[in-house]
Amino acid sequence: MTHEQRNPLGVIQKGKQSLQYERDVFIKESASIVGTKEGQGPLGSLFDMVGDDDMFGCPNWEKAESSLQQDAVYTALGKAKLKPSDIRYIFAGDLLGQSIASSYGILTYEIPFFGLYGACSTCGESLSLGSMAICGGFADNVVCVTSSHFASAEKEFRFPLEYGNQRPLSATWTVTGSGAFVLTGKREKTDNVRARITGITTGIIQDYGLKDSMNMGACMAPAACNVIYQNLMDFGRSPEDYDKIITGDLGTIGQTALLELLRDYGFDISKNHMDCGIEIYDAASQDTHAGGSGCGCAATVLSAYILKQIEEGQWKRVLFVPTGALLSKTSFHEGENIPGIAHGIVIESVA
Amino acid sequence: MTHEQRNPLGVIQKGKQSLQYERDVFIKESASIVGTKEGQGPLGSLFDMVGDDDMFGCPNWEKAESSLQQDAVYTALGKAKLKPSDIRYIFAGDLLGQSIASSYGILTYEIPFFGLYGACSTCGESLSLGSMAICGGFADNVVCVTSSHFASAEKEFRFPLEYGNQRPLSATWTVTGSGAFVLTGKREKTDNVRARITGITTGIIQDYGLKDSMNMGACMAPAACNVIYQNLMDFGRSPEDYDKIITGDLGTIGQTALLELLRDYGFDISKNHMDCGIEIYDAASQDTHAGGSGCGCAATVLSAYILKQIEEGQWKRVLFVPTGALLSKTSFHEGENIPGIAHGIVIESVA
Repeated sequence: MTHEQRNPLGVIQKGKQSLQYERDVFIKESASIVGTKEGQGPLGSLFDMVGDDDMFGCPNWEKAESSLQQDAVYTALGKAKLKPSDIRYIFAGDLLGQSIASSYGILTYEIPFFGLYGACSTCGESLSLGSMAICGGFADNVVCVTSSHFASAEKEFRFPLEYGNQRPLSATWTVTGSGAFVLTGKREKTDNVRARITGITTGIIQDYGLKDSMNMGACMAPAACNVIYQNLMDFGRSPEDYDKIITGDLGTIGQTALLELLRDYGFDISKNHMDCGIEIYDAASQDTHAGGSGCGCAATVLSAYILKQIEEGQWKRVLFVPTGALLSKTSFHEGENIPGIAHGIVIESVA
Repeated sequence: MTHEQRNPLGVIQKGKQSLQYERDVFIKESASIVGTKEGQGPLGSLFDMVGDDDMFGCPNWEKAESSLQQDAVYTALGKAKLKPSDIRYIFAGDLLGQSIASSYGILTYEIPFFGLYGACSTCGESLSLGSMAICGGFADNVVCVTSSHFASAEKEFRFPLEYGNQRPLSATWTVTGSGAFVLTGKREKTDNVRARITGITTGIIQDYGLKDSMNMGACMAPAACNVIYQNLMDFGRSPEDYDKIITGDLGTIGQTALLELLRDYGFDISKNHMDCGIEIYDAASQDTHAGGSGCGCAATVLSAYILKQIEEGQWKRVLFVPTGALLSKTSFHEGENIPGIAHGIVIESVA
């Protein structure tokens, strides 16, 4: 089914899952804050701030993660020369139960708040809803922020750190970090903006029956496949129309699964696929196995690396696809499958 | 600061936190499914379905809650004579860690999915984002669905049911139920619609330093006050411009706090305030203490009772304000405050 409907603002409903924005939606500014391990990785020099202690001066891991969100928003607003009162909505989320890293992290800004949960895809979800708010004329400026923290995530989903569990090679390492993005619909001639969001493809939950929480890349690959395939179909594009097709945190095993799945659907993205989870660590020397993961993985890599490549003209157009694994410790203990969800954002250079 | 900006679709940014929709956003249909206790309450005869066993045929409480969402969406779609493929987005949320009731509940519909977390305010959050998607021309039809379940919530936040803990009189009883709403921007002349959404007021997190998870009404009252006060200011309305101002689940203690707080801000809403949590149970005979609570409370009462009153011409315009308490068992054990959030929806009769 192809269904195209253009409204007076130039929003086009493309195909089944996509929107094309013909009105300006800019990523005005962004910021990334990461922990020590991420600072020691291949992208370490690109982040705005690297903590030298993963507690970030806080009494517990959850507060540490909240402080990451708080600092990322503060830094992004500062770079954008905006005050909290200039921001109409904040879209925020994280991995913890009841999204407490976000609630406590953004509380002090007193900005009207939409809390989101899309597991590690939440960065994409926040940019989707944030860009819709801008394109629809509901807001002049919005902030989208997401975070994860290795220690709070291990506590939430896996084992106490003190237990020192062995991790299979398919496991990923949750990124300690937060990325914040200021979106705006207005650009004065002198305003610098980092990039433009020209469309989104919203994911459908994919459940391929996988249950292994130590192999989340495989659980999420079908969701990435859904969004990438549907984006190419809805927009009538081929993989080569993107300089990069960038998943959030599939890691090496998820990447293999994704490439195979998409080949079954007739697309070869092996030449231009990149995964933030693979880029953020040097797996061999940093003992991170399949790669990085978490809401903070895609968000910090987008802010620090992907947007930089776009600004510098290396890439003209990318498809950014954070992926999430939908599980909780309760669903895991009850033997449920681990379905996946992904959210695709088309990001283009403004040059 | 008063800031009004009208765009070609007739969306007006009102004041600091509100939007006024001048384009049609209809609640086309809705459905409510509840458990036995809710069926025995004063509104019992109004719900679309009352389960005779709160397991709803499932092996555990979490799956039971998922089945509530699945059935509520199914019923709402059936009443609206729409198929899942007619729905462009589904906005869903619940109270459980990582929102698993929603993920597993709506999975089978294969609709592009935005997962939300606003604690018990999530019904209002879903209607806010859903109505924005309709008004902005991003979707022809969307579904908004939320749920809660007494047993899954007790397990998630409080004590094992088998422990038989005593509950203070300030405690509320989590509603077992789910409400689903089909929003649409298009209405053929012969189409029946239940009501119209004409505006929203998005909440700012309010933290008054309260920490008592057995008195969530008090924790949430400041958030309700923020949204109601700001709605009246942004739209230049007085309380009498609404036939009812309806909070989600403040209960009796939260109601007292809200009325006092709003009096301090110069507004008396005592004549037209209603709380879904107070309405859904007969506290004296049903031993529910301060009232009902949970995402399912506001959602089922909106679907079964409020929209009925609007359809029947009893009420022309109401302000619907679900409220949420932002805590998790981790934040509780770490001694954190319990901030509140609320989301306001202006619902009007189509007659």
